Amino acid sequence: MSIKIGIMGYGNLGRGIECAIKQNADLELVAVFSRRDPKTVKILTEGVGVYHVDEVLNFKDKIDVLVLCGGSATDLPAQTPEYAKYFNVVDSFDTHAKIPEHFENVNKTAKENGHVAVISSGWDPGMFSLNRLYAGAVLPNGTSYTFWGKGVSQGHSDAIRRIDGVKDARQYTIPIDSALEAVRSGSDPELSTREKHERECFVVVENGADKQRIENEIKTMPNYFADYNTTVHFISQEELDRDHKGIPHGGFVIHSGKTGWNQENTHIIEYSLKLDSNPEFTSSVIAAVARAAHKMHKDGLTGCKTMFDIAPSYLSPLTPEDLRAKLL
Amino acid sequence: MSIKIGIMGYGNLGRGIECAIKQNADLELVAVFSRRDPKTVKILTEGVGVYHVDEVLNFKDKIDVLVLCGGSATDLPAQTPEYAKYFNVVDSFDTHAKIPEHFENVNKTAKENGHVAVISSGWDPGMFSLNRLYAGAVLPNGTSYTFWGKGVSQGHSDAIRRIDGVKDARQYTIPIDSALEAVRSGSDPELSTREKHERECFVVVENGADKQRIENEIKTMPNYFADYNTTVHFISQEELDRDHKGIPHGGFVIHSGKTGWNQENTHIIEYSLKLDSNPEFTSSVIAAVARAAHKMHKDGLTGCKTMFDIAPSYLSPLTPEDLRAKLL
Repeated sequence: MSIKIGIMGYGNLGRGIECAIKQNADLELVAVFSRRDPKTVKILTEGVGVYHVDEVLNFKDKIDVLVLCGGSATDLPAQTPEYAKYFNVVDSFDTHAKIPEHFENVNKTAKENGHVAVISSGWDPGMFSLNRLYAGAVLPNGTSYTFWGKGVSQGHSDAIRRIDGVKDARQYTIPIDSALEAVRSGSDPELSTREKHERECFVVVENGADKQRIENEIKTMPNYFADYNTTVHFISQEELDRDHKGIPHGGFVIHSGKTGWNQENTHIIEYSLKLDSNPEFTSSVIAAVARAAHKMHKDGLTGCKTMFDIAPSYLSPLTPEDLRAKLL
Repeated sequence: MSIKIGIMGYGNLGRGIECAIKQNADLELVAVFSRRDPKTVKILTEGVGVYHVDEVLNFKDKIDVLVLCGGSATDLPAQTPEYAKYFNVVDSFDTHAKIPEHFENVNKTAKENGHVAVISSGWDPGMFSLNRLYAGAVLPNGTSYTFWGKGVSQGHSDAIRRIDGVKDARQYTIPIDSALEAVRSGSDPELSTREKHERECFVVVENGADKQRIENEIKTMPNYFADYNTTVHFISQEELDRDHKGIPHGGFVIHSGKTGWNQENTHIIEYSLKLDSNPEFTSSVIAAVARAAHKMHKDGLTGCKTMFDIAPSYLSPLTPEDLRAKLL
């Protein structure tokens, strides 16, 4: 019996979930829900219907896990607690500062209605969080460092696009090699924001726009760029479309810690991701988490969970026996 | 209330557990048990007693978790099922092929007596196993590669020491850079044993021993060396003691996988360890697992577990609320 999945929202993430389901023989796509007119939404999987969000409750008994692919700013804070009343759900809520509040809201309705709701799935929050937890638990006398990139930041790209005279833009966050090396040396360095990452921007401007002003506005933009060394390249729309179409990302969680009676030994734990497609990798994590949500629910668990609460074996399609024989 | 730990066996691993307990404020060392005459065993922690193994049942109500530091060949197959009758236990059983059998034996007595028994804790099996599981669950259309080293293999060092004319030896397992790079490229290479690792041996011989014969015996030794490119260096005992005293180790779990409707995107997940002291890092993992065993037991769980069955939050001393606020 395959696990029946519904997808709520069909953008990059929703399409990524659809692709991930295709790769997992035990997962089955049952329906896609959209706020758009379903007739205008074309999905990849043959024979699977697209429905308006208003119809989702008709699928209450046909879906094992509903994957919520909305945004963290306004969609998920409302959707996840609401749909946890009717379904096991998974989201990728990634506003780190608001996770505790989101957890409490979701936990209440999930518990009251006997569902499992996993929030903040993906790679950060998600796989990176797990690696921070494992490393810190194993080497408590140590420090974890997280670096992001090289990869596209949608938020920073959008911020550039809002500048007057800018037609299009793509921003890459890049970890600085010397900082990575300092951390890997075990020297436990203090690193400023500027020392950890740099930012590279590819910008298309409108005819006659003042490039000097635009470059200055980017480099001095508070929060987004002012605290970083930033490089700005002006290119044509053709170049942007040709060379910067992908959504690569990745990063590093590096933990250095000491052991021994007198802290005489140093250990370095490093986890890294190099991703061709940020949304497809995030979706792949979510697909495994959806499997876990279903298995946890079958085991009688309820309430809001994060990846911290999921025993790893729940994520795998293999039986516990196979896992021990093949992967341990 | 701290978690009360007993250590069974006081070699490199037992001493490592003792050091790890010192770093964890919520763990407390209660007693060390040895097969040797307790008067001859000197431990590091002031005020903690050393007892003969025959006395361990007197501590049935004074110990929350008993950590078993014996060897996988003969100690643990007998000890873990036996002590799981009386205690929550943790071991680092690492004979991969015999894990399913060990699991069944331990599960029986642990379940019958209402205890939690975690087997095969450490880094391989252990942290490396977890990374193989997570990566395979997230990117099922992919391949996991495990590399070990650079590090000392005790088994291979012992094998050299058994050769006639050899006084002492130290063997390093070294992953081959070109193999690592091929895997990181995402090309999913087929790699032979010889292509993945090489072996470097530092050997001290007796006066007048035939070095040519010894080198030949090492390089042609079945299973241990014959399938690898092996380098042999003859050095003095002084050099061995001066330059090769440590027990460093480490390695890499690298998983490359494809996503996308037509598998058009490649992702690389890499987990690596660089360890000054193999037994101290293993011990540090075990200490975190001992905490988890106690917390799982308090939550009503029983039976044999591996790290696959431990929800990550159990390993950390932080509360679920703190974990979500600080690490997610």
